[in-house]
Amino acid sequence: MLSFQITPTNYPNLKQALTDKINHKTKPPGSLGVLEPLALQIGLIQNTLNPKLNNPTIVVFAGDHGIASKGEVNPFPQEVTAQMVYNFVNKGAAINAFCKSNHINLQVVDAGVNHVFPDTLDIVHAKIGHGTKNYEIDPAMSRKDCIKAINAGAEIVEKHYNSGCNVIGFGEMGIGNTSSASLIMSALLDLSINECVGSGTGLDNDGIRKKATILERVAQLHNKDGENDPIDILSTYGGFEIAMICGGILKAASLKMVVIIDGFIVTAALLVAKAINKNVLDYCVYAHTSGEQGHTKMLNHLEAKPLLNLGLRLGEGTGGALCFPLITAAVSFLNEMASFTDAQVTNSEL
Amino acid sequence: MLSFQITPTNYPNLKQALTDKINHKTKPPGSLGVLEPLALQIGLIQNTLNPKLNNPTIVVFAGDHGIASKGEVNPFPQEVTAQMVYNFVNKGAAINAFCKSNHINLQVVDAGVNHVFPDTLDIVHAKIGHGTKNYEIDPAMSRKDCIKAINAGAEIVEKHYNSGCNVIGFGEMGIGNTSSASLIMSALLDLSINECVGSGTGLDNDGIRKKATILERVAQLHNKDGENDPIDILSTYGGFEIAMICGGILKAASLKMVVIIDGFIVTAALLVAKAINKNVLDYCVYAHTSGEQGHTKMLNHLEAKPLLNLGLRLGEGTGGALCFPLITAAVSFLNEMASFTDAQVTNSEL
Repeated sequence: MLSFQITPTNYPNLKQALTDKINHKTKPPGSLGVLEPLALQIGLIQNTLNPKLNNPTIVVFAGDHGIASKGEVNPFPQEVTAQMVYNFVNKGAAINAFCKSNHINLQVVDAGVNHVFPDTLDIVHAKIGHGTKNYEIDPAMSRKDCIKAINAGAEIVEKHYNSGCNVIGFGEMGIGNTSSASLIMSALLDLSINECVGSGTGLDNDGIRKKATILERVAQLHNKDGENDPIDILSTYGGFEIAMICGGILKAASLKMVVIIDGFIVTAALLVAKAINKNVLDYCVYAHTSGEQGHTKMLNHLEAKPLLNLGLRLGEGTGGALCFPLITAAVSFLNEMASFTDAQVTNSEL
Repeated sequence: MLSFQITPTNYPNLKQALTDKINHKTKPPGSLGVLEPLALQIGLIQNTLNPKLNNPTIVVFAGDHGIASKGEVNPFPQEVTAQMVYNFVNKGAAINAFCKSNHINLQVVDAGVNHVFPDTLDIVHAKIGHGTKNYEIDPAMSRKDCIKAINAGAEIVEKHYNSGCNVIGFGEMGIGNTSSASLIMSALLDLSINECVGSGTGLDNDGIRKKATILERVAQLHNKDGENDPIDILSTYGGFEIAMICGGILKAASLKMVVIIDGFIVTAALLVAKAINKNVLDYCVYAHTSGEQGHTKMLNHLEAKPLLNLGLRLGEGTGGALCFPLITAAVSFLNEMASFTDAQVTNSEL
């Protein structure tokens, strides 16, 4: 069974003390823009005036999708998921370059890739199955496997926490997984498929229309509109990597970690997590506004404003890795800047 | 006399080779968004397929403004400029926290603060005068002092270049300097004062109207509309720190350094630099879109799209320091990511 106890970060006295600390720094009030509420949020998450970020980590969960074996919703063939896992291990992907550049630990998880990896490969071997079933016919996975995946994601995050990590980002790799994310979003937010479908890794307009037609048929087949059991929706549309991310996010929040949310697929996992326990949102920092059109609607629903808008549409957690220095910067100014009094600088309000 | 020879980064063969290199990386084409043209630009600046960023440095130029002694255009009193120089030296300002956090060298220059700093203070002592003259009455500085300041900025940058720095950002501190920047912008871009004036460090609407009225009177007094001698405009409106930044930008471009442009005042200095030698633009990377309304108009004029939009309105080069990890990330993916062939990943276009 699932149980994630998540404390809301609702500490009025600390909030006031953090706000005062921020406002007394040697700068015009508000002049550090979004870094100011970010510093406040991290102070509240860690329940301290002096937060620290330790062992930053990004975990990339990889999984395959039954739908993708036909190649109708994705321009890249399914085998690319496994190929990219090898590329991650060999440090050749974008997420490798960005994690290295920003001093972030990277871990790759086989959540359910349709490929047999050697046991010796330096990944977390947590395969639930060889890709999900094709939801054009059957639910992507059983409810049991869905819960297994959620718990597996939670366990992986807990290990990082136990190693001293208190800030974690989530990434994904899975050819076809924007389709899962669109279906989950459509069911949970009660939006039409057309509002939730985009180009993924690079479909043209014809491709998007074809993808929307297929997903519309899938949505009608399973008929989850108005369904309020998030596990049912997640089981139906998959994928294993999304379920693990959902569990990872919930566990990270329950452990009071800073949770970095990046991209369309990870945000879909967060929608499921929020439906399970809405307190999870207090712990989330949003990395990047994806070019995928549905992402903006998800973010509006979550009242979330990502730190970056660089036109990325790659996934892998790349936006999370790229925004991490901004999170560090928010904590740094909170801890290191002098106050007007300390620095003997005349305040405009005095 | 001024002489800055700046080579345009117009290497068609290298441009094609860099574009091919970027497009063969293991990612959907274009999926790294603005980091892709940024990597291309840096390759062109360094005239190589394998650029490197060495000894990143931000130089903060501080100067006082005659207009600010009256306190009508600025909510903070003039002495804050000197107080903040001490705060920089004592590592208490936002730019200190951000440079430390992103491993950037920071240097502070007294370009013309109205204060006698001890010789032993760890800054570059390059004072041209004890603040500029009040341009409500006289030009801010003589043409001779303006050229002296430009050359001083250039010399400071050249020293960093000689120490192995090839990427440099510019910051400023100077109570009242948004007024100078607005006047320069208005004269160079032939825009009304109202289009160029904003809240600076925190004026309210009444304050902005008062500031605009004063600056309108100043603009009428000196009547530089249609003036096409940028040194004349810069001498008239100041300040010493803006003139030094202008020289620093020009020198950095002539030395083929990556030049990080951040904020309203530094962008005003760039407008002057561009009027002196338009090739300077090839070397500029734009850090952050300021909340100052005139900044957007400057950026449109320059056809520039900054990397960040965090609501900062502090100056000091803070946006430059914060965007530096993105510049590093662009270079990292160009140098470190595997190609589809290297990684044996199936390309969608094959």
